[in-house]
Amino acid sequence: MLEDNGLIPKNLSNNHRNNGWSNGDIFSGRNDAIVPELFVPEFRLKEAINEAQNNPKIDIGLIDLQWIQVLSEGWAYPLKGFMRENELLQVLHFNTIEKNGERISQSIPIVLAITTNVKEKIRDSSSVSLYYNGELYAVLRDPEIYLHRKEERISRQFGTTEKDHPYIKMIYESGDWLIGGDLEVFKPIKFNDHLDQYRLTPNQLRRKFSAMSADAVFAFQLRNPIHNGHALLMTDTHRQLRARGYRKPVLLLHPLGGWTKDDDVPLDVRMRQHRAVLEEGVLERDSTVLAVFPSPMMYAGPTEVQWHAKARMVAGANHYIVGRDPAGVPHPRGREATPDGNLYEATHGARVLRMAPGLDTLEIVPFRVAAYDLTNKQMDFFEPARKDEFNFISGTRMRKFAKSGEDPPEGFMAAKAWKVIADYYQSLNKDDK
Amino acid sequence: MLEDNGLIPKNLSNNHRNNGWSNGDIFSGRNDAIVPELFVPEFRLKEAINEAQNNPKIDIGLIDLQWIQVLSEGWAYPLKGFMRENELLQVLHFNTIEKNGERISQSIPIVLAITTNVKEKIRDSSSVSLYYNGELYAVLRDPEIYLHRKEERISRQFGTTEKDHPYIKMIYESGDWLIGGDLEVFKPIKFNDHLDQYRLTPNQLRRKFSAMSADAVFAFQLRNPIHNGHALLMTDTHRQLRARGYRKPVLLLHPLGGWTKDDDVPLDVRMRQHRAVLEEGVLERDSTVLAVFPSPMMYAGPTEVQWHAKARMVAGANHYIVGRDPAGVPHPRGREATPDGNLYEATHGARVLRMAPGLDTLEIVPFRVAAYDLTNKQMDFFEPARKDEFNFISGTRMRKFAKSGEDPPEGFMAAKAWKVIADYYQSLNKDDK
Repeated sequence: MLEDNGLIPKNLSNNHRNNGWSNGDIFSGRNDAIVPELFVPEFRLKEAINEAQNNPKIDIGLIDLQWIQVLSEGWAYPLKGFMRENELLQVLHFNTIEKNGERISQSIPIVLAITTNVKEKIRDSSSVSLYYNGELYAVLRDPEIYLHRKEERISRQFGTTEKDHPYIKMIYESGDWLIGGDLEVFKPIKFNDHLDQYRLTPNQLRRKFSAMSADAVFAFQLRNPIHNGHALLMTDTHRQLRARGYRKPVLLLHPLGGWTKDDDVPLDVRMRQHRAVLEEGVLERDSTVLAVFPSPMMYAGPTEVQWHAKARMVAGANHYIVGRDPAGVPHPRGREATPDGNLYEATHGARVLRMAPGLDTLEIVPFRVAAYDLTNKQMDFFEPARKDEFNFISGTRMRKFAKSGEDPPEGFMAAKAWKVIADYYQSLNKDDK
Repeated sequence: MLEDNGLIPKNLSNNHRNNGWSNGDIFSGRNDAIVPELFVPEFRLKEAINEAQNNPKIDIGLIDLQWIQVLSEGWAYPLKGFMRENELLQVLHFNTIEKNGERISQSIPIVLAITTNVKEKIRDSSSVSLYYNGELYAVLRDPEIYLHRKEERISRQFGTTEKDHPYIKMIYESGDWLIGGDLEVFKPIKFNDHLDQYRLTPNQLRRKFSAMSADAVFAFQLRNPIHNGHALLMTDTHRQLRARGYRKPVLLLHPLGGWTKDDDVPLDVRMRQHRAVLEEGVLERDSTVLAVFPSPMMYAGPTEVQWHAKARMVAGANHYIVGRDPAGVPHPRGREATPDGNLYEATHGARVLRMAPGLDTLEIVPFRVAAYDLTNKQMDFFEPARKDEFNFISGTRMRKFAKSGEDPPEGFMAAKAWKVIADYYQSLNKDDK
């Protein structure tokens, strides 16, 4: 009550309560546990900002800011900021971070690269300030600067050193040093793109699941439009959880909201498409939470899918749907490099996910392959016995339909949702002219 | 008694007892635990060999045979043969293998590569036979053949894809498929090089430690000659363990005996040098076990040092001395690639070793830097305060002394041991002419 009226600074009381939660509580699927956040408590905010203005300044990029959002909201628990070298070593070698004797899943580096010039400027400062677009967002306390061993990091994180891979390219172009430290963030990260309302923090999601009386939360991660095959998978998972005795399984429909490569469908288009799918009733609104996952995409396959799953565990999910070749990407050298031309083997993601330390409390729901059933004119689970009656509609073929204005087969995607995609690709056609 | 008289086949009784040992016992440092081996029990040997002769045949190389020795003697516990794909995935991503819910350290792949031709020949056979130099050594049961994703394996194992790295080069040249399965080995692997007596198995070492009433075993891994700086480190570790209350600390002096790169000093020369060090009394014979570790060398830095430590845990060690840049190697592109021209950062090995899952029961003894003390004319622990009085004698400089026939500074290495090294390098000079 005192808190609601603003008499006790919110973060102070949170911090106090946070200390009562163990790693186990955070990952237990109990949605009354509170995930520690990295925001400066309000009562210290003014002083902290004043202090920060005297620090050496680091200008960061958009992807760095997205990582600050990820860190500040607690998705990467137990990280308290950009990784120090001992944390990075654990991540690269073991895909975990040790805390209080427990191994917590953390498969991808969350690091801040700086140039040698910036490094010289910082010298022995006990804290530095992070600016995006001229605006102060955070301080990094007690910084540790260490060599950005790019080749080694990239090899261990991606299983390749190909410079034409979309995220690897950016790593090679980034600074030669990494700076780790404790992050104190001055305000929630907003992008003012009419989608901030969907950027729910793990704690906001947990409260929402509680309010819905969810007794199971299953997450679906995607960075693509939802067709009826995806929808079938989600509704079928819902059905299975009900059959197993859960009374209120809730779907966390959680598109990836950070940086994606140029030829992926942009977030705003995907969000309009997802909303249309809900409006058309293909997914049940009462048992679905549509929200944006703020992480950038790294296209790191089996390594990255662990991150996708772990972050959803932090947000309260206890079931995770995993598809074929999650976070996969074509190999920059195509079929010359691997039999199918993809960087990762299609089953490795799900297999690694099942064996990953620290994801033991998450149930992995395998993706059943859906395809277009020519007989029943709808997307359905593929049956090898009737294989001639099924048609696989690839992303490439979907884009072709959309660009040419041709309709895909009836029942492939809800009409309104298809229109969003068709309009987007046709607007690209115009840009090309 | 019945066993000693050969009335109960030795392996049968072992197998029976093995079932009573848990992972924890193997890694507890209790030297009465028995490490499971992969040898065919004598009573089944004849039948098994007859059967094996009808299998498809795989010709293996020397390094493969060395890995069979490693596997058969139990160093890679709990592996039961060359890795299947799920095991390899765990190793590459987590540096562990899960068994009975426990994570056991296993950082390096132990795999058998075959060509497409051999793969075709095997087809659906339920077992295949492994031949080295025309001689049958083992069968692989229930084989699993899967793609040798070389680029991905190399990236994750070595943190680089440089083709000029000595072990990576061999991987690129090896077959495009891997074959995993349960190994049954027909006889102990011998090399008839007068060093087989030093190739003690983990169980033989454990029995030796028991017989010596060792209450602590500290292992020292090396692939180089021992100079007095190394010796100081070992005697000082012995002293420290005594000071901590151990009554009989035993040194496992355990040079790497498998494949090494061409410019490393060969095993037989190193063994003669090590024996000379013991004969000269630089190390105490009563508390030292000199034995050969049969593993090939991979030069995989922080990844490989975990293997070196884990294998010694299997052999009963509970303390492990770790040096600077363990299993390190120059970067094939030298200083163009990294600041010091080495592939791995010098402190990473020890840091990763301390944080590695499954090595928790092993105490890591850090390597204190020793250098030649010009004032006292001996190798001593480096003291920064008197830094001008110390001289670092690099491997390169040592080789220069040896090749030119010049003596190194007095007190650098026991005279008899130095002679072994000098003779070796001078014999190389002759070969060059």
